[in-house]
Amino acid sequence: MSADMVQIFSEFIGTGILILLGDGVCAAVNLNKSKAQNSGWIVIAFGWALAVTIAVYIAGINGPAHLNPAVTIAMAVEGSLKMSLVVPFIIAQLLGAILGAVLVWLAYLPHFEATTDKGAILGTFATGPAIRNYPANFVTEVIGTFVLVLGLLAFGANKFADGTNVFAVGGLILAIGLSLGGPTGYAINPARDLGPRIAHFILPMKHKGDSDWGYSWLPVVAPIVGGLLAVGVFSFM
Amino acid sequence: MSADMVQIFSEFIGTGILILLGDGVCAAVNLNKSKAQNSGWIVIAFGWALAVTIAVYIAGINGPAHLNPAVTIAMAVEGSLKMSLVVPFIIAQLLGAILGAVLVWLAYLPHFEATTDKGAILGTFATGPAIRNYPANFVTEVIGTFVLVLGLLAFGANKFADGTNVFAVGGLILAIGLSLGGPTGYAINPARDLGPRIAHFILPMKHKGDSDWGYSWLPVVAPIVGGLLAVGVFSFM
Amino acid sequence: MSADMVQIFSEFIGTGILILLGDGVCAAVNLNKSKAQNSGWIVIAFGWALAVTIAVYIAGINGPAHLNPAVTIAMAVEGSLKMSLVVPFIIAQLLGAILGAVLVWLAYLPHFEATTDKGAILGTFATGPAIRNYPANFVTEVIGTFVLVLGLLAFGANKFADGTNVFAVGGLILAIGLSLGGPTGYAINPARDLGPRIAHFILPMKHKGDSDWGYSWLPVVAPIVGGLLAVGVFSFM
Amino acid sequence: MSADMVQIFSEFIGTGILILLGDGVCAAVNLNKSKAQNSGWIVIAFGWALAVTIAVYIAGINGPAHLNPAVTIAMAVEGSLKMSLVVPFIIAQLLGAILGAVLVWLAYLPHFEATTDKGAILGTFATGPAIRNYPANFVTEVIGTFVLVLGLLAFGANKFADGTNVFAVGGLILAIGLSLGGPTGYAINPARDLGPRIAHFILPMKHKGDSDWGYSWLPVVAPIVGGLLAVGVFSFM
Repeated sequence: MSADMVQIFSEFIGTGILILLGDGVCAAVNLNKSKAQNSGWIVIAFGWALAVTIAVYIAGINGPAHLNPAVTIAMAVEGSLKMSLVVPFIIAQLLGAILGAVLVWLAYLPHFEATTDKGAILGTFATGPAIRNYPANFVTEVIGTFVLVLGLLAFGANKFADGTNVFAVGGLILAIGLSLGGPTGYAINPARDLGPRIAHFILPMKHKGDSDWGYSWLPVVAPIVGGLLAVGVFSFM
Repeated sequence: MSADMVQIFSEFIGTGILILLGDGVCAAVNLNKSKAQNSGWIVIAFGWALAVTIAVYIAGINGPAHLNPAVTIAMAVEGSLKMSLVVPFIIAQLLGAILGAVLVWLAYLPHFEATTDKGAILGTFATGPAIRNYPANFVTEVIGTFVLVLGLLAFGANKFADGTNVFAVGGLILAIGLSLGGPTGYAINPARDLGPRIAHFILPMKHKGDSDWGYSWLPVVAPIVGGLLAVGVFSFM
Repeated sequence: MSADMVQIFSEFIGTGILILLGDGVCAAVNLNKSKAQNSGWIVIAFGWALAVTIAVYIAGINGPAHLNPAVTIAMAVEGSLKMSLVVPFIIAQLLGAILGAVLVWLAYLPHFEATTDKGAILGTFATGPAIRNYPANFVTEVIGTFVLVLGLLAFGANKFADGTNVFAVGGLILAIGLSLGGPTGYAINPARDLGPRIAHFILPMKHKGDSDWGYSWLPVVAPIVGGLLAVGVFSFM
Repeated sequence: MSADMVQIFSEFIGTGILILLGDGVCAAVNLNKSKAQNSGWIVIAFGWALAVTIAVYIAGINGPAHLNPAVTIAMAVEGSLKMSLVVPFIIAQLLGAILGAVLVWLAYLPHFEATTDKGAILGTFATGPAIRNYPANFVTEVIGTFVLVLGLLAFGANKFADGTNVFAVGGLILAIGLSLGGPTGYAINPARDLGPRIAHFILPMKHKGDSDWGYSWLPVVAPIVGGLLAVGVFSFM
């Protein structure tokens, strides 16, 4: 494989691991008869933080480990990724996210059958707003992704050792989840939301409801806006 | 910008991130319909610890990342900050804290409307005592900030690698929050308390109560006393 | 002792510490009158993550610290362990796991007497499925161990400093526990499950039920399959 | 001050910080009207883990930071501390522990008055068994301290960077607390238990009960035995 193909493949595998572990913790907390059912926000927040940490470790062997179209677009605009990789990266991230969601469905198969709450099932795949208010939800996702990308740029600027930096990325996700996740469930990543939503739409599940496509554009567009905003503020700093 | 102006601007941005993530976790836990509502003290304590960690990472690119007037005054007395920067740092920290609180208000806008408990709303911005007893509350905040500044001085003296040190700062905030936060909600930072209290006073909110100005001097004065005490003990050590 | 014997002995001691701390946290959460009873999934997940971290630290002085037959087999196939050590390592791991389970029994002796729920007692030793469905449970354990071994291979490839790497291993276990532990309690290690099950079978306990031998083959075979799968994917990457 | 005196003074200050933060988290969780009341075992376990981490950071500037007579005795027997420092270290640790407990009493003063449960008040200072059974409680404390000292010796042998090592010590305390703390509340440190018990005996508190002197010998003797056992096993390894 060419060096570019290796990086693209890493985005695919890395985003797959990210969603397997991230949507996995949603399944663990949401689904009936799971040993971790109702174990609370601290489990959700640590689960996603570790999901990103481990996925970055694995994808970081061969590439920059963005695992997030909002990060990929921000880094291309900021100049640390060549433009020709943007579209292939995003496609790889989206396919990886779908794969990850399918693996969660496999890992929790009997629990999806034992769960009748349609909202809990959709919530295992994609995010949704606690209070549906598109302008407000949009602002929340913009702010969350702004912090994410500003943090990632700062880690790069600080040039910490790789090892520590991976933990810092995990800490960043943990911070955003704990503090800014309350209103919309912190998508802060178009692939994280859209990929599993597509999987939810496709996969056969007995008690499945609709995939809430009316909301689906928001966790795609708002994170991209938030990421670009962070590039602007960072270049000013 | 001059080197001093860059540092002052970093204190502004850094304290803004600190309060966005710190008051953010209070909003997440306190406000109605938040997905993290009532998720408990462990979420609060980790939320604030990560808020400081991330803010120090980001502000640490261009400056010492005090983000706290009590630290700034202690470091100036101890000799590691020039005196002429004390007032500009404090002003920047206070303005940053107000900005951060406004961003929390934006991120949780529909949840502030959905919350009718005035104490929960004020508690999202500023600290307050569990049992109102000014001398006792003062002692608690002095002890908390004493541990904070003693720890920060010890990290500096140990000369650990930057990366690890940032985590140590987060661990220090986590420790103080878990262990000494019970009585007063651990302001341990005049800007952290006064800035958001000003924001609470100014911002329009349907179910807003008063801003408890009677208590507001305490989380300003006590942390400064605690920080100076730590400088004294540390220089003796 | 020969260098091989030292490594084998380290696997014995390390797996003993792993199970002492890992089954220890199950005892802490499951058994009657324990100060940590019913403290939830976050305690279980952190307990096992730290159990592996500390065990790897201790066993890592003298050896590779696999502490897991699925890892040992995967590493031998991948080429980083010589084949002649596979069987001695696995025997040492199994004996260490039995020793660790006996130490948990000793540490919690009056609590085993105070507990009458047979499921809680068995759950302190070995894993069991939340919904008994052998094909599905098998898939879950394969996926969990796949992530474990892929992560371990990635950490090795990234060549991070030893210190950081140990924490990464802990983070990996935490991630798997939080996200993939819901259906089967994440054995992901044949010795972790079979050793304590043997201890459960042998040890005298007033309210002991049967040792669920019907399920016992699954957390032995599935992790080995998952580990080999990870070697395949990693060598492709 | 002579080099020895500086080290002895560091043990005093360090153990003071350890107990301030450690007993502090017990106060936070146990006492009435504390904002962290009933926040559970995860808060207790993280609180003590961070207490040790921060105390080791601070005391580690000038000394080995044992902060624990069982560690001091083990290290002297193992050869890394000169015998003439054993008694002065232990006295400093005990006095530091008393000081730390007095500071907790000061920080939570109105909460001690608002708490009428004598067990909760004593539990803020000293440990006690969940099921009173001296031989069993003794075994539990021996096993806990065995893991502590074996871990500390392994960290030293691994020669990790200082910064990482401090976190490893925190992880070790977290592991022991989560997994082995259920039966006796993991004293694993004679000074941690005896010092605060003396403070409980002396300090005026409206709703104070007796100081349970009948149990007080156990968390002194058992940790010393566990530590010596670890030195034996480690030197064999």
